[in-house]
Amino acid sequence: MKPDAAIGVLERTPPTLRALLGGLSDDLTSAGGHEEEWGPFDVVGHLIFGEETDWIPRAGIILEHGDSRPFVPFDRFAQFQRFKGRSLDDLLNEFERARDRNVQTLREMKISADQLKLRGMHPELGRVTLGQLLATWVVHDLNHIGQIAEAMAKRYDAAVGPWKAYLPILDR
Amino acid sequence: MKPDAAIGVLERTPPTLRALLGGLSDDLTSAGGHEEEWGPFDVVGHLIFGEETDWIPRAGIILEHGDSRPFVPFDRFAQFQRFKGRSLDDLLNEFERARDRNVQTLREMKISADQLKLRGMHPELGRVTLGQLLATWVVHDLNHIGQIAEAMAKRYDAAVGPWKAYLPILDR
Repeated sequence: MKPDAAIGVLERTPPTLRALLGGLSDDLTSAGGHEEEWGPFDVVGHLIFGEETDWIPRAGIILEHGDSRPFVPFDRFAQFQRFKGRSLDDLLNEFERARDRNVQTLREMKISADQLKLRGMHPELGRVTLGQLLATWVVHDLNHIGQIAEAMAKRYDAAVGPWKAYLPILDR
Repeated sequence: MKPDAAIGVLERTPPTLRALLGGLSDDLTSAGGHEEEWGPFDVVGHLIFGEETDWIPRAGIILEHGDSRPFVPFDRFAQFQRFKGRSLDDLLNEFERARDRNVQTLREMKISADQLKLRGMHPELGRVTLGQLLATWVVHDLNHIGQIAEAMAKRYDAAVGPWKAYLPILDR
């Protein structure tokens, strides 16, 4: 995936999450209360952590070391401690700032079509390319936008009554 | 579900879809090309059609006729003909206008806690309540926000390479 195409989606995620979640009642947006049951609050924390430790740092490792230095493993659960006691609106602001910085860094990397084929070493998945990393950054955003919609929907699981049969988001 | 809680989510959907989709490349947002494979364009058309024929008209039937008059069946595929040749930004504007009007109508209905228990007759599901209708309107929005994220993500299915294993949105 080319950097410009990735940026076209990446820069939309903070305003999308702000439109969906900003100022909304805690009933709908709070943490899930369990490591395997994320609420919107947990997802936004996870996205911040990804901005700090995942995408751009890994792109830097590929550009500098290729596949000779494996990526640092990503901590999927760091957000549960890190953001305790913060407000969701505060996290939305922090995510927006971190994403803006990283989009700017990605632009400054001026990655060429040839560089998209450069390889890195994922600690579990093995060899991956820089182009795959950029596509994954984008799809990871979309995955978590879907997860937030799902977490919000599930809080109305009982309230929809018989209509549940028509709402696949309640069945995942 | 109470009208105020429903409105809190319902009024966020047009700006959320505009942030996610507005001005984005057709590659990512076009129609799916098949009745069972909706693209973002098809989903927004479906949401407009729901504003016109589903939620508020059905609330009106319940308030006026209770369960003595079944709802008019909803056409899940109307959008495929109806919006042909239009632009997505045009549909996003139309959805916003239709939703704004309906939120205003919902406010003017001044539905009481007792009225939320009123029953209507769904043509397939049988008896449902007005409160369930409002919750379903909300969850239906979230369901389709999730579907749009999924349709966008799937256009990068091949591009993520080995990372696909970590992205459940690509596996639905």
